[in-house]
Amino acid sequence: MKEFEEIIAREGKVFPGNILKVDSFLNHQLDVELIDKLGEAFYEKFKNKGITKILTIEASGIAIACAAARFFKVPVVFAKKSQSLNLGGDIYVSRISSYTYGKEYDVIVARDFLGPEDKILLIDDFLAIGNAMKGLLEICEQAGSEVIGIGICIEKAFQRGGDDLRKMGYDVSSLAIIDSMSPEGGIRFRAKLQ
Amino acid sequence: MKEFEEIIAREGKVFPGNILKVDSFLNHQLDVELIDKLGEAFYEKFKNKGITKILTIEASGIAIACAAARFFKVPVVFAKKSQSLNLGGDIYVSRISSYTYGKEYDVIVARDFLGPEDKILLIDDFLAIGNAMKGLLEICEQAGSEVIGIGICIEKAFQRGGDDLRKMGYDVSSLAIIDSMSPEGGIRFRAKLQ
Repeated sequence: MKEFEEIIAREGKVFPGNILKVDSFLNHQLDVELIDKLGEAFYEKFKNKGITKILTIEASGIAIACAAARFFKVPVVFAKKSQSLNLGGDIYVSRISSYTYGKEYDVIVARDFLGPEDKILLIDDFLAIGNAMKGLLEICEQAGSEVIGIGICIEKAFQRGGDDLRKMGYDVSSLAIIDSMSPEGGIRFRAKLQ
Repeated sequence: MKEFEEIIAREGKVFPGNILKVDSFLNHQLDVELIDKLGEAFYEKFKNKGITKILTIEASGIAIACAAARFFKVPVVFAKKSQSLNLGGDIYVSRISSYTYGKEYDVIVARDFLGPEDKILLIDDFLAIGNAMKGLLEICEQAGSEVIGIGICIEKAFQRGGDDLRKMGYDVSSLAIIDSMSPEGGIRFRAKLQ
């Protein structure tokens, strides 16, 4: 998505350690008009696939998932991060290792909100090594829900998450794919085949 | 807001300890169509007041703040919860005691995204004793931003947060005000003066 790439190039900040900060429009301050366009792009990609629910993870995924859900006219469910050991039995749980934060946490979804009848679109802001997304996939498996596709705003293609998920057979659609980036050299996006 | 009260009465679950779960539509699964109506209601209340930004707190406030921001055509900023002691100097910080979770945490906002030029609408899903909202007010004070109003989806009027904030002079607009509730007796909403 050309407009999105231009905003990332102009406003994103690259730091050592493969960190890209997009705080000014995507995950701290939110450019709602832009995020609506991202949501619509996911709709164009996955409409007519019978999606019944959009699943994301708190907190950065919520705004994007809601923007998409408005087009699909389906509910959003956001998985909650929990470090509590004392979790009830009426939830699905998956343990995630965070690359960014260097710690582990559980993500949970109440059983009431996902089931075998659901056809799920997974949405998140970033895809890097893919641990958060694999956690959401595990939750869908526990629920017996079918995963129709995965919508990602920014994929760091130099990390392995996107390749892993595509090899597993998932339909991953990323609105901006970064092939390489560095504080000195800036951001290089993958050329899109038209 | 009559429709909203009806949904709370029908789908909300009251537990001992003044807990109201609205997980099925407001803060775990999200009814995006309903949330858009809540956002529009905040717009009707606070339009023409020169709002430049909507400030909320992760995670439950994000969807509602975005729904409102779409009408105001302004950005959302969401304060992040942090338990880290190692915070940089380019942020505003306020420490919050959580009644629900029985612990303390910091909320932070990057200095880049709030300043003296901003006229802020604060939005959150719940107002109970008001600690989270007071944390956001402290952040606005640090930033020198003017707080124009406070939009709350569900106010528990039997706790003191709403009264405190109104006594402090803030324009608090709650879409549903609960005067009392109990697992046995259900939920009693405040009658609205028309």
